[in-house]
Formats: sequence, structure tokens, C-alpha cells
Amino acid sequence: MGRVSSIISFSLTLLILFNGYTAQQWPNECQLDQLNALEPSQIIKSEGGRIEVWDHHAPQLRCSGFAFERFVIEPQGLYLPTFLNAGKLTFVVHGRGLMGRVIPGCAETFMESPVFGEGQGQGQSQGFRDMHQKVEHLRCGDTIATPSGVAQWFYNNGNEPLILVAAADLANNNNQLDRNLRPFLIAGNNPQGQEWLQGRKQQKQNNIFNGFAPEILAQAFKINVQTAQQLQSQQDNRGNIVKVKGPFGVIRPPLRRGEGGQQPQEKTNGLEETLCTMRCTENLDDPSDADVYKPSLGYISTVNSYNLPILRLLRLSALRGSIRKNAMVLPQWNVNANAALYVTNGKAHIQMVNDNGERVFDQEISSGQLLVVPQGFSVMKHATGEQFEWIEFKTNENAQINTLAGRTSVMRGLPLEVVTNGYQISPEEARRVKFSTIETTLTHSSPMSYGRPRA
Amino acid sequence: MGRVSSIISFSLTLLILFNGYTAQQWPNECQLDQLNALEPSQIIKSEGGRIEVWDHHAPQLRCSGFAFERFVIEPQGLYLPTFLNAGKLTFVVHGRGLMGRVIPGCAETFMESPVFGEGQGQGQSQGFRDMHQKVEHLRCGDTIATPSGVAQWFYNNGNEPLILVAAADLANNNNQLDRNLRPFLIAGNNPQGQEWLQGRKQQKQNNIFNGFAPEILAQAFKINVQTAQQLQSQQDNRGNIVKVKGPFGVIRPPLRRGEGGQQPQEKTNGLEETLCTMRCTENLDDPSDADVYKPSLGYISTVNSYNLPILRLLRLSALRGSIRKNAMVLPQWNVNANAALYVTNGKAHIQMVNDNGERVFDQEISSGQLLVVPQGFSVMKHATGEQFEWIEFKTNENAQINTLAGRTSVMRGLPLEVVTNGYQISPEEARRVKFSTIETTLTHSSPMSYGRPRA
Amino acid sequence: MGRVSSIISFSLTLLILFNGYTAQQWPNECQLDQLNALEPSQIIKSEGGRIEVWDHHAPQLRCSGFAFERFVIEPQGLYLPTFLNAGKLTFVVHGRGLMGRVIPGCAETFMESPVFGEGQGQGQSQGFRDMHQKVEHLRCGDTIATPSGVAQWFYNNGNEPLILVAAADLANNNNQLDRNLRPFLIAGNNPQGQEWLQGRKQQKQNNIFNGFAPEILAQAFKINVQTAQQLQSQQDNRGNIVKVKGPFGVIRPPLRRGEGGQQPQEKTNGLEETLCTMRCTENLDDPSDADVYKPSLGYISTVNSYNLPILRLLRLSALRGSIRKNAMVLPQWNVNANAALYVTNGKAHIQMVNDNGERVFDQEISSGQLLVVPQGFSVMKHATGEQFEWIEFKTNENAQINTLAGRTSVMRGLPLEVVTNGYQISPEEARRVKFSTIETTLTHSSPMSYGRPRA
Repeated sequence: MGRVSSIISFSLTLLILFNGYTAQQWPNECQLDQLNALEPSQIIKSEGGRIEVWDHHAPQLRCSGFAFERFVIEPQGLYLPTFLNAGKLTFVVHGRGLMGRVIPGCAETFMESPVFGEGQGQGQSQGFRDMHQKVEHLRCGDTIATPSGVAQWFYNNGNEPLILVAAADLANNNNQLDRNLRPFLIAGNNPQGQEWLQGRKQQKQNNIFNGFAPEILAQAFKINVQTAQQLQSQQDNRGNIVKVKGPFGVIRPPLRRGEGGQQPQEKTNGLEETLCTMRCTENLDDPSDADVYKPSLGYISTVNSYNLPILRLLRLSALRGSIRKNAMVLPQWNVNANAALYVTNGKAHIQMVNDNGERVFDQEISSGQLLVVPQGFSVMKHATGEQFEWIEFKTNENAQINTLAGRTSVMRGLPLEVVTNGYQISPEEARRVKFSTIETTLTHSSPMSYGRPRA
Repeated sequence: MGRVSSIISFSLTLLILFNGYTAQQWPNECQLDQLNALEPSQIIKSEGGRIEVWDHHAPQLRCSGFAFERFVIEPQGLYLPTFLNAGKLTFVVHGRGLMGRVIPGCAETFMESPVFGEGQGQGQSQGFRDMHQKVEHLRCGDTIATPSGVAQWFYNNGNEPLILVAAADLANNNNQLDRNLRPFLIAGNNPQGQEWLQGRKQQKQNNIFNGFAPEILAQAFKINVQTAQQLQSQQDNRGNIVKVKGPFGVIRPPLRRGEGGQQPQEKTNGLEETLCTMRCTENLDDPSDADVYKPSLGYISTVNSYNLPILRLLRLSALRGSIRKNAMVLPQWNVNANAALYVTNGKAHIQMVNDNGERVFDQEISSGQLLVVPQGFSVMKHATGEQFEWIEFKTNENAQINTLAGRTSVMRGLPLEVVTNGYQISPEEARRVKFSTIETTLTHSSPMSYGRPRA
Repeated sequence: MGRVSSIISFSLTLLILFNGYTAQQWPNECQLDQLNALEPSQIIKSEGGRIEVWDHHAPQLRCSGFAFERFVIEPQGLYLPTFLNAGKLTFVVHGRGLMGRVIPGCAETFMESPVFGEGQGQGQSQGFRDMHQKVEHLRCGDTIATPSGVAQWFYNNGNEPLILVAAADLANNNNQLDRNLRPFLIAGNNPQGQEWLQGRKQQKQNNIFNGFAPEILAQAFKINVQTAQQLQSQQDNRGNIVKVKGPFGVIRPPLRRGEGGQQPQEKTNGLEETLCTMRCTENLDDPSDADVYKPSLGYISTVNSYNLPILRLLRLSALRGSIRKNAMVLPQWNVNANAALYVTNGKAHIQMVNDNGERVFDQEISSGQLLVVPQGFSVMKHATGEQFEWIEFKTNENAQINTLAGRTSVMRGLPLEVVTNGYQISPEEARRVKFSTIETTLTHSSPMSYGRPRA
């Protein structure tokens, strides 16, 4: 009997397993009954800073398609050139720096000459001056579009940490591999390795030169084998962000204004002549460029394929918000995109509702936390600190929202009869529901308690 | 020994399970040896009608990417505003009604004024008139394109049930979530819940206001908490289609002709000036607009991105067919799309053949049934009733077909030598194969028996 | 105790199974630590030649999205019309032939007339001349774009085998079914069946007429039932490539030059007026059209959506390379595409490096072998035989590469300070790394040993 019962229990276990398996065959990664504010799951330390990586296997990030990282680059830190298998948007949260991207097939456009001082002595003494592709100054609020396969480096030339956050969309067809984020290092390495790799476990990640035979590199670069071995950085344990010794004299035009970080951004007319000179950066922190601005409440700015055409290739866009205490972003949903919302400053109470009418998020979220907002999920933000600032990355080059309340909301678009019959309320109440809130996006609200148990 | 053998049998079971699993790792959802005419798997009843849902986990629908629903809205029934995570085409099978969609960010364009009577008294007495977005009249044959995230409502203002069928494409990138259909209710609820949700089981689906705290809704809408609670519809068990009490006086232009349902559709020149005024409806039941028309046989009409540009965004198109008894639609296949074929009237014998040359469908199909036609599968339709009418939704904004027989068929395009050598027939026979049928799409055929065992 | 331990071992087995399953839930098909040169896994023999099929379940091909086939058509062999569920590029490796494609809905454009002799007698005697769609001459180096659902045939009118290789992209949305290659046969059959079908096992694959009832075919084609049965080819065991008896007199314009295979290709201005006349073929073997040409090293030619606009629909492009002994293709990676590299002639030593800096391929590859190059993986080619010639198919209509070394390389685009700090080398060494190699793509290299154990 005992054996029979154990066999039966096994059979049951098997059945459960099998059913579990069958049930999961059909992908349900967006079947989200509970969302969380996400923190990084791994910190990769380097000589000149650190990279904090969110686990892109977390159900919410899997649903959104995003991989998310934060870079903290110390002063004089240089994030060595790296490219990804996916298109990426990067936002400058804090500090200032320099950034270079190497566009495939494009010629160098920045050349040394006696007019621009640095490095001049060296250049002349050796009869040869450096040339390279464009270098850009970065400041807070800059949003940078980087296509897949394009190597990019950052240098912190300020006195405070340069903090960047980046979202790469693994789900659109700029990524032609599987849905894992794969950084390819041109220089440096990652002695810790990456944690997500279930097959490989923790192992050192080397730069791509490391995989070639030194003799081949020597022939490809017309250099000696010792220099080729040096390119492989095998003895180097500084990681992917290194500390620059001495001056960092890359050729670059001088800033126009003394203070740095305040130069007027050059606006183009949207007609970029070649891929090589295509604009890839837009600043979202200038309230005078905001899409929505109310002095007492805050502002919201967006960058999409209309003001940064390269986003059409990347199929990404971004929204920057900055609101004051007790300002509320009216409940809204994403029409055609998933979003990843990262808090850059302050804190807010956020409620989010899924397709079943369930409250799936009801917490205070604060600086440094990440929240995924899937397509169609309604979300309300209410600033609880002095200032609440965030950046939202969206999986559509022209992401649209729809609001529940306000002047351009779904309720305003519905006839009175639909409202009265739908909610069994009087025409008078329906009028108030439709017309009381005249703002479109931001409104005042009084302090509220939050985090109450779900209704 | 008994135990050992049972252990062995377990191991075998495990192996089988594991092998089964391994075999299924690689998705094979279009490995279809047998297709069926599909009926709804769940009926969601409401006060003012019912929604019949096809199981989108059925292998055929999984392969096609479509989710399929039928709405039966009783007279005075109002389908409350709802939006989806996917683009959708809706076809009016029966009845007449009104339809409104709320386009994100667009202003109201329909305003009350003394010229149009209804609701005038109320409006004046309170010094405030209603405004809302465009409302459209629906009649049989209307095909309506609805993007993801756009809330839509229907009202039956006729005397007979308003019957709609809708296909949402879960597989194209208008859906940024997983491959499940997620209706988001703006008003009403679904006390029964949806059956497909394997994780959640059967549970009531609420409207999205239900997930927000009433205090937050009160602040967002500038209304009192009691009205906010009313928006949540928690005590409401009418479902998602409600019965309107009293007149339904939404503002709308008068129909031009007395009979209703017969107004000439306004044709635009294809250049719609803004997203807000983009045309989203095309009628497919007017034989004078048909693409193929033979008086004695019937007609076929299509709507694609050329005559309804919004379909470029949705990546969908549709084909409407209506043929008389013993008319045959020549064997054909879909070049670049999957199709979902729904019978609106009558019956027909259909044969379908897969890539292995096997007959995977050989039955009579009748009104109310659904059949999936995967890309490349050849299909022949032969009307067995007095009239056979159907609507076919296709997963491509410009779906193309190729016929096996007829004037523009693949056999006509092949040189005689390919035909004679390919089938080992004489040049005389090959000429007959190529040239005997001079029709392109529809032909006469004599009555045939059907359903015979496969060859 | 024994039973308990066996139960425990079972539980462990179950756990392992379950864990294995969980680990594999998240697709990792591009987690490639080791790549191989791939050979065909199945040979399908026919009367007039053979089709060699690569297993598209092999991890590398799964990652790339490609299905790959080689066709060997003997003289007088006719590959019978077949269409696929995916867009396809075909390259003529060897021989000469004729090719026809039947574009859906397009009329016949090639008609018999007394001016072009063949078949004339027959035509007149029966008062009826053949008409069909365009027939094209094929020669070595021709690259042919074929959309999904378009039937295509080939005929070898030369004296040597006509050898074609074809790559179909199962991963882009031209394929609306699952990720399996499905050939639909218009004529002929495949008595062996296909091996990949895990559900179906080995079974004869018939042409699509076979699935229809003969009576239906008779009515559709207005032919008698005997001819209809003949179309089904049930008694035919010649396979999908048949031997033509007697002359193959399809109507076609005469070649302009006597030798054949050397006619100048008609270049269009890129503005093709209709889909029916859209150009679908480009020759890649003419060095005078090469993108990169160095007399002592070799040449590289590409075809993409700019010079063959139909590729925009197919989302594919191709690169043809031909280099001499000891020429090296500088290390490079694919920015926005996966590639499938097939060696048409000679041999080369190839090293490839993945995102972890590991050498994943380090072998000599020779004529007839296939190698997948995933997006971002760096690859170096070094001709070891007298001549190395290859064709690379890419999953992007405008695939881009980035080189590691050379005049337009990533190293040239980096400022000197990034190079010196990144690799801890002197400015003098960094200059050599940046500027020593002045070629862009091809360079000389001295003979090297290869296949050494990984560093």
C-alpha cells in the first residue's frame, strides 16, 4: 500500500509538473498581479566607478523587453568603448562629461590643429596629429540614442560622479539575437562576469581582442605582437571603467559659455544630411522646451522620432518629468508602448492598475528605483517629496498616452449618455466627471495617505 | 521486482515527458495536420447582450496570432468603453448602431447647439452643453479599424440585435505585451471573468477605476468621493453591455436619408489631414465597390492600407465575400498573411491543404463558425446553401493571394514545358490546364458531395 | 530504506528536470560558446538532381533565424515550382540556367510569336500559342530575391550541374507561421519527406493538388478528372527535380552575346514602375561593380535595398567576397544583422569572438561549408588556399559592419587618450594601433598557423 501510495503521489507530482509546464508553455510574462519597485541585482565594480545592473529576467522587465543599467563614473573615470546587441537610450542623471560614439564607416571629423591647444606639443614633436570622430559634451538631462553595434565611451571631466541610466530594448528587431543583453567590450574587461548567464556561471568577461590570436591582431593592425597582447588586456584588472592618469586631452571645440553644462544646445532643422552627422542627443531638462509646463506644478518634456529622427531607427522614445510637492500626474495609460520609469530625484506615491482592474502597485517610490509600466496599465503619480523627478523610457518611437481625467481625457471624449449609463450616475454628476478637471496632464492635489490595503 | 519495474516505468514516463518537452521547446504551433471549424468557448453574459469569446489558445488561433470575439448587443444595449492591448478589426454582421472611439489627445468635435435638438433642454437649463468626440453610424458591412489603447463603445439604436465580430492581432508589434488578449474596461465590469487566464482562474474583472483609491479619483476628477466610488462600479453587476434607460441622446449629425443604414459613405481622397480625423471605417457590403463582381456568382471586396490608410498602422486588412449557390472560389493561398474566416450567412464546403499536400479541412462550414487559413495553405470554397457570405481578417495591411487555377493563376504564369514535364501530361492537356478557366477568382461549379475520406 | 532512497533519487531527478526546464524557459539560443562549420544534415534525392538541407534546429541556425539549402540540378533538370512561407535569397554558385517566378496577380508578359522560333509549329497547328510570365537567364554570381508565397522554378540548360544555395529568413515577419521552413510544392513531390518534422516523422511530401479532391480540381480547371488526378502526381516518384525529356522550349528573348552567361545585366534606375516588373536579380560576380576592389587582394560586392529595392520587403541583403591567398578581411562585426556565410570556392582560416571575448571559432573552412556569424560577433578571415570565395546572407535589408582595424575602424574613431588609457599603452604605440593600417577592409598578411588552442 505504501508503495502504491508513493507511486500515486509521484504520479500526482508528475501531473502537477506536467501541468505546470503545459500552463507555462504559452508565454504569460505580462500576467502581472503585483509589481515592485526594482533595485539593481548586481554591482560590477571597476577602478573608476561601477555599473549597476538590473536583472532583465525579472518578470516585469521581461514583459517590458527592457534591460536596465546605471553607470556611476567617478571624476577622471573613463567608461571604455563598448557596444550592445540592442538599441539604447541613455539619460544623464548627474554630473558632466564627454561622450564619443564611433559610427561605422564614417570618417574622423575632429582633428588637431595649433588653434586648439591641448596635445599640440606632442603632436608637433612627432609630426603627426590625432584625428577622431565627434566628441560631445554631456550635462544633466541629456538623452542619448545609441544604435546596436555602435561603440560608445564616456569620460567624467567634472568634479562629481557622472551618473547615467540606460535602457536597451531587447524586444525590437534592432536586437537580432535572443532576449539577453550582450555588452561587447572593445577595451577593458569585467573580472566579475555577468550574473544572468545561466549557462556560463560567473566568469571573467574579456574584451573582444582577447579572443583573437595575438599574431592575427599584429597583422591586422600592422603592430608588433607585444602591443597586440597589450590590446587584449589580459593582465588588466581595472574593469570597464578606468581612472585616467594625467590630463585627458581629446580634441574638442571649446564650450561657448564659461560655466560648462549650460551651453545652448544646437538645434538642427530635423534634416540631417548624412548618417555620419545625425544628431543623437537631446536635452530634456530645459523647462523652456517643455511640452507641458505649469509654474506651480512642474513640467513634462518628451523626445521622440519627431524631434530626434534617429529614434525612428531605434524604435524608442523618452519622457522627462519634474513635479513639485503635491502635484499629481493625472491617471493615464500607454497606448502603444511599455515604459520603464526611473526616479532621478525625490519621491512619489504611485498607483498602478492592470487589465483586471486590480491595483498592482501602491507604494512610495524614491530616487534610484525603477518601475515598469506595461502597455495599457493605468498609472497615477503624486509627488510626496519636495520635488519628484523621473525619466521614462518607452518602447515606441512615438509613444502615446491616454488620460482618464482632464481636458483631453477619455472621459471628455465620451458622450454624456455613455457616462450616465455606464456608471449609473446623474447627468449632473456626469458633467462634473467630464468637465471639472480642466488640466490635461498635471493637477494640484492635497496630501494623501497611501499604501492602504487594496479595496 | 515489482518495485524495480515500477521504477523503470516511471523512468520511462519521465523520459517521455522530458522528450515531449524537448520536442516542444521549438515552437511548432503551425504544425497543423487537422483544422476544425471553431465555435466560441466562453459566453460572457451582460444585461444588454453577450460577448462570445473564442479560445485564443486553440492551436489554429495561436498559429494565426488572432484573438476572436463576437458581440451580440440587444436593442438599447450599450457596450461600455473598452480598449485592448492590440490592434483590432470589427465587422458589422447584423443590425445598426452608433459607435464612438476616443482618440488620445484629440479634442472634442461634436458639440451641442440649438440646431440639433436632443438634450437641448437639459443643456440650456444648466447653462452647459455636452461636447464629445465623433460618433459614427454603423450599418451592415462596416469594417472598423481600432488601434491598441483606443477606447471604443457601441450602442444599438435599432430594433434588432447588433451583431459584431472582431479579430485582434496579438502577434504584431501593436501588442507590446505577451500573446494574450487583454480588454481594459473603462466602465462596467465582467462578473464572470475570463476563462483563458490559467494563473488567475475565474474571477471578476473590474473596470480600471476600481484599482485606484477613491480619494485619488476624487482629486483627479475634482469630484466627491461618493461619485468616485460610483465610477468604480463595484456594486454593479450589469456586465460590460448595459441596457440604456430612456432616450440615448448623443449629439450626432442627422442621417442624410430617411431609412438609415443607407447613407452614402463619405469617401475621402486618402489624404487625411490629422490623426484626429483619420478615417477608420469602410463599408464592404456595397457590390458597386466590389473588387470582383459577377452578377450570377457573387462579389468580393477588400479593405487594405490603400483604401483605409490607418490599416498601415494596424497591419491588418479584410476581405468580404458573398457568393451564390454552386459558385466556387478558385483554390488559392495567402502569400503574406494568415487569415481568420468567419461565416456571416449561409454555408459552404471548404477544402484546405497544408504544406505537406495533406487535406487538413474538408467540411461544410456554416453561419457563426470560424476557420483559420494559415499562410501558404491552399483553400477552395464552394457555396452549398442559397448564399454564402463571409468575412476574412488578414494579418497584413496589404494581404495578397495567389490562385491555383484561373486567368491570373500560378498555372497560367508557368511555361507550357514546365507544366508538361512537371505533371507528365501532353501539351494538349497542359494547354487545357492553363487556359480552360478564364475567370480570375469565382467560377461556376456543379453540386458536389463532400466530406469524403482523404485520398 | 531502499525505497525511500529511490524515491529521493526520483525527486532529485524531478528537480533536475524541473530546474533544467526552468532554466531553458528563457530562450538562450544565441548563447554560443562554440560554433561549427555546418554541413547538410539531409539529402533529398530526385530524378534530376538533389536538395541538401541544413538542420535549421541547429543552435547556430536557430540563433540566426535562417534556414539554408543547396540545390544541385543536373543538366536538363527542372526544379518544379515551389513556394515558401518566408522570404528567400538564392545565389548561383555554379552553372547556368533559366528561372521563372510567378508573381501573384500579374499578367503573362512573354508570348509566342513567329519571330521566336521554338514551339511555333505546335502553336500554329493548334491555333493557340503559349503565354507565361517572365523567364530569366541565370549565371554564376546571380543573387535572386524571392518573397514568401511566390512560386519559383529553375531549369538547367547548360552542360554542367547548376548549383544554387538559398537562405530563407524564418525570423522576420514575412514568415507569419512558426519558425519552420515549409516548402509548398506546386508540382512533383518529395518521396523521402523532411527530417525536421518531429511530429510527423518521415513521410512522403505531396504537392498541394494532392490534398484536393480530383472532382474539385476538375471543376476548378475545367478539365476531366483523369487530368486532375495527373496533377496530383501520386504515382510520380521523380521527386521535386525532374529530368526534361526532349527540348525545353520556353519562350524567352535571345541572349545578346554568343557565349551565354556574359550578357550585360540590364540596370534599372531604381524606379520600378510596378510590382509585376520589379527587378529581383543582381549579379555579384562582376568586379567592375565591386564595392571594395584591390587588384592584388580581391573584391567585395554587396546587394542591399539601395541597389535592389525589393530587398526592403524581404529585409535581407547579401555580400559576395573573393580574395586571393594570404589576403585578410580585417576583423569586423555585424552591426544590425546576423549572417550566414557559405564558402563557394577555396578555403580560409576564420577566427570568431563572442560577447564574452571568447574565441568561438578557429578553424579552416572550405568549399561547401556554412558558418553563422551572429550580430556583434567579431570575425577575421584569412585566405589559405589560392582563392577564397564566399557569399554571406544577412538578416537586414541594409546590413552594416564595423571594423576593428583600418582606416574607417572603431580604433580610428577613438581619441588617442581613450586608446592609451584603455590599453595602458604609450601614445606612440596608440598611434601605431590607430594609423598603421590604412586599408578599410582587405589587407595583406603573411601565412599563419591556425587552430591553436585558445588563449
